[in-house]
Amino acid sequence: MPQYVFSYFPVKALGECVRLLLAYGGQEFEDKRVAFETEWPEMKPKTAFGQLPILEIDGKQYAQSVAISRYLGRKYGIAGADDEEAFEIDQNIDFVNDIRSKAATAHYENDPEVKAKKQETLVKDVYPLLLPKLNAIIEKNDGHIAAGKLTWGDFYFAGLFDYLKVMLQMPDLEAKYPAFKKLIDNVYSLPKVKAYADAAPKTDF
Amino acid sequence: MPQYVFSYFPVKALGECVRLLLAYGGQEFEDKRVAFETEWPEMKPKTAFGQLPILEIDGKQYAQSVAISRYLGRKYGIAGADDEEAFEIDQNIDFVNDIRSKAATAHYENDPEVKAKKQETLVKDVYPLLLPKLNAIIEKNDGHIAAGKLTWGDFYFAGLFDYLKVMLQMPDLEAKYPAFKKLIDNVYSLPKVKAYADAAPKTDF
Repeated sequence: MPQYVFSYFPVKALGECVRLLLAYGGQEFEDKRVAFETEWPEMKPKTAFGQLPILEIDGKQYAQSVAISRYLGRKYGIAGADDEEAFEIDQNIDFVNDIRSKAATAHYENDPEVKAKKQETLVKDVYPLLLPKLNAIIEKNDGHIAAGKLTWGDFYFAGLFDYLKVMLQMPDLEAKYPAFKKLIDNVYSLPKVKAYADAAPKTDF
Repeated sequence: MPQYVFSYFPVKALGECVRLLLAYGGQEFEDKRVAFETEWPEMKPKTAFGQLPILEIDGKQYAQSVAISRYLGRKYGIAGADDEEAFEIDQNIDFVNDIRSKAATAHYENDPEVKAKKQETLVKDVYPLLLPKLNAIIEKNDGHIAAGKLTWGDFYFAGLFDYLKVMLQMPDLEAKYPAFKKLIDNVYSLPKVKAYADAAPKTDF
């Protein structure tokens, strides 16, 4: 049996999608939660890009959360039935990450005044355009990110969701956009995913 | 014959990868260069995400530059020989876009003081770590982004390159990192790509 080791910080953020996918695939894995202050400095130079997450399969390193999710999606038969569906997942996940990138401009700003101004612009001019579009996409796809069915893209969005709420500063995001809640429930109600999530360490995002 | 219409602003930036791939595939297409001030406001609400580029194939819209590039890569047989190679392209292109995202934090900052401070940090702490890593990856892959051969990832990087130089504020980027130049030459020396590029409108980035 191949040995799977998944390394990420002790949060969901950009790593949970991979944990959820491995759980869905029934793949046993070492869930290595790397302490940022004490363990990461030593580990960082051994990673391909100086970043986590890293999935190791029999010692071979796989980096980048979206790329790993797509790769596991192919392995588990949830990467679209053809090139058109595969494209649609990719396109819609890239849109999710566009929203995340925009949120990051405020979230990772250190200067409190600059941060507040950026957040104001996002809340006024950006989110009201993008979030309803994403909600409509998920609504149209019956509680999925694309192709009207379960794909790796759903795991990516569900895994990212709590982090997205923090970045957007919207604790009530799923109340405002009910399709988001529907997608998340679709993922977390899968028996193997539920079993993983119930047993996993609880984290805020 | 299917009708291809490619819409983007009159620059290379995030659209040139698609133009280069269509040229490589020998696919005739309408190269629609959308004027930002006069044409875009009317077109914007008709696009899926309020963004360009958009590729239309017989009226069906495809959005998101990386997703379109991967889709065309599959069509033209340059998306990796197996799941391992496909993953490697995805992973390395996501790394290229990590660099682009970091550059964007300074490039798209409006406040000149904040912008200068961000740029200083990037030049001092970020680029010296990431750019040599990317150069080494391309070196190892013999002038390609992944898999040691031509893939859609090469078109993505080559198409983006002039824009990346502007965002990084490094007009001599390819002099510093010779593997970048090797990759770009590998793409632009393909006969059909060269024919397109020679005939295309000249733009700064």
